[in-house]
Amino acid sequence: MKDLSREVRFVSRPNGASTHSNFEIAEVELQPLGSGEVRVRNTWMSVDPYMRGRMRDYESYLPPFQIGKALEGAAVGEVVESNDPGFATGDTVLSMMGWREVFNAPAAALRKPEVEVSSPEMYLGVCGNTGHTAYIGLADVIKLQPGQVIFISAAAGAVGSIACQIAKLMGATVIASAGGAEKCAYLKQLGVEKIIDYKKTENLSQALAELAPSGIDAYFDNVGGDHLDAALASAKTFARFALCGMTSGYNETVSGLSNLLMAIEKRLLLQGFFVPDHFSRQAEFIEKMNRWIRNGDVTYRETVEVGIERAPAAFLKLFSGENIGKMLVKLA
Amino acid sequence: MKDLSREVRFVSRPNGASTHSNFEIAEVELQPLGSGEVRVRNTWMSVDPYMRGRMRDYESYLPPFQIGKALEGAAVGEVVESNDPGFATGDTVLSMMGWREVFNAPAAALRKPEVEVSSPEMYLGVCGNTGHTAYIGLADVIKLQPGQVIFISAAAGAVGSIACQIAKLMGATVIASAGGAEKCAYLKQLGVEKIIDYKKTENLSQALAELAPSGIDAYFDNVGGDHLDAALASAKTFARFALCGMTSGYNETVSGLSNLLMAIEKRLLLQGFFVPDHFSRQAEFIEKMNRWIRNGDVTYRETVEVGIERAPAAFLKLFSGENIGKMLVKLA
Repeated sequence: MKDLSREVRFVSRPNGASTHSNFEIAEVELQPLGSGEVRVRNTWMSVDPYMRGRMRDYESYLPPFQIGKALEGAAVGEVVESNDPGFATGDTVLSMMGWREVFNAPAAALRKPEVEVSSPEMYLGVCGNTGHTAYIGLADVIKLQPGQVIFISAAAGAVGSIACQIAKLMGATVIASAGGAEKCAYLKQLGVEKIIDYKKTENLSQALAELAPSGIDAYFDNVGGDHLDAALASAKTFARFALCGMTSGYNETVSGLSNLLMAIEKRLLLQGFFVPDHFSRQAEFIEKMNRWIRNGDVTYRETVEVGIERAPAAFLKLFSGENIGKMLVKLA
Repeated sequence: MKDLSREVRFVSRPNGASTHSNFEIAEVELQPLGSGEVRVRNTWMSVDPYMRGRMRDYESYLPPFQIGKALEGAAVGEVVESNDPGFATGDTVLSMMGWREVFNAPAAALRKPEVEVSSPEMYLGVCGNTGHTAYIGLADVIKLQPGQVIFISAAAGAVGSIACQIAKLMGATVIASAGGAEKCAYLKQLGVEKIIDYKKTENLSQALAELAPSGIDAYFDNVGGDHLDAALASAKTFARFALCGMTSGYNETVSGLSNLLMAIEKRLLLQGFFVPDHFSRQAEFIEKMNRWIRNGDVTYRETVEVGIERAPAAFLKLFSGENIGKMLVKLA
């Protein structure tokens, strides 16, 4: 009897927006485990906007996805068989081997979580890179201070919704933007008082200026484009911008900014960041987030697709704005 | 007999590129000096690209120029009459009362230089805001380290030509861009080895990538637009960009950047800065620059127009790329 699994392969580079045609579901036969190898059944995998970057043919923080090979991304799973003394059947493991149901990997490609959470998918969302990204952006990049005014875009999304809550815990006033009534209602639930529904807003710069008549001290950018432009226009002198994502720009190539000159005039700091640079402090973050969740200070929402065949759809929904909170694929 | 002077007034806001029609030379009658006032004859005035920003109708680091009023800018002059105990006839004074031949001002609008230089116009150029801007951008914003590779745009200009030399003194490899054979020859004289004549370059990103095959650690941006885009493409991970000027963008409104997403992927820092924020350390800078000039480590060039009626032309030349080194207007 063969050991079969399924994986999602990257079969063509998108030109503009990515589509279903860039993906293919393939059946694979698992080889017998070699020495030092571990077999893992993924229970959950993450889809994230940054993956669009790896679909281009150039090296950035991570190498580009290879045509004909399975994609990669954060996943949590259970060990089903182990030829390595560090892992035992039943262990929960984290890896970058998402987009696969079951896989064999050398032990070095896996790690056991240092801090427990109450449900494994939280390692991918609120307690994983997503929540950690929100925290690092606010605490390390922006260095948000009590009393400051911060603008957060894509605020009902995975990172944005956590950033809104942490920013409030840090004593800031949050202005948040999202698209559509359902997302804006969610932001209201989170306690955000100043909300922009950008889909109903003709002039984003003007809308932001009205909500922040004295300007913004900080901007957490998940979008780029017109949101970044509005933030440049409303920025106070010496404002700090954390550049986290550019949903508006992953699929296009030109970012038309009218207000970049203001970065000089207002002496702004714009800082790109990437959470793996901060992994040494991830355990500390997870402990803090566990406490916040236990105390009800942070809540989280997930949008879940079920089954590996739904993974491409889950990814594509990140760009059509269909997810609230963290987008996940449940695999087992 | 009336005391007459001339000044340059701002008579209309440019729409796109500024032109002679935005300026008017006016004769003014000087009032008798009031108490605490000082009369100054400007000997030199500065024209700088940032002044284009003050021609727009919004508050940035400095208030917009007022229609019908004289423009403002750095100037050096001599006291010709004083009703203030802090100033005596013959004193050299610095002010923001450029664009005027002779003027009355309260003593608070003037300051005496803390450190002497060998020729007064140096207060406006190599030892003034221009040189200080180059120094702050490299030392404070970029924090340039020996052995690093830095790209400097508008490198034959006022700030750029000083930045090239200081960067070399700091032990960096300099890649510099300028437009035209004369400017590139000047850069060679300054000891810059890797030079891009952007007017002869079809693909700036490719040209930069060829000169910096391992990437750049830093970018000193005086231009914005395609130069910034090329720098984003060639940046190493964690590269630092000092945003000093955007000659390409002062007259237009949209900066089309293809590579802004790389600011995230490469975790770049982009920092706008403005030298008046660093005035507390200006004396220290001038002493250092005096030493460099004495030792022949830094040389400087000036492009001089003579007479206040030439001041608008001098300003406009900043944007047509006609100046090498610091553009000055000699008034007396």
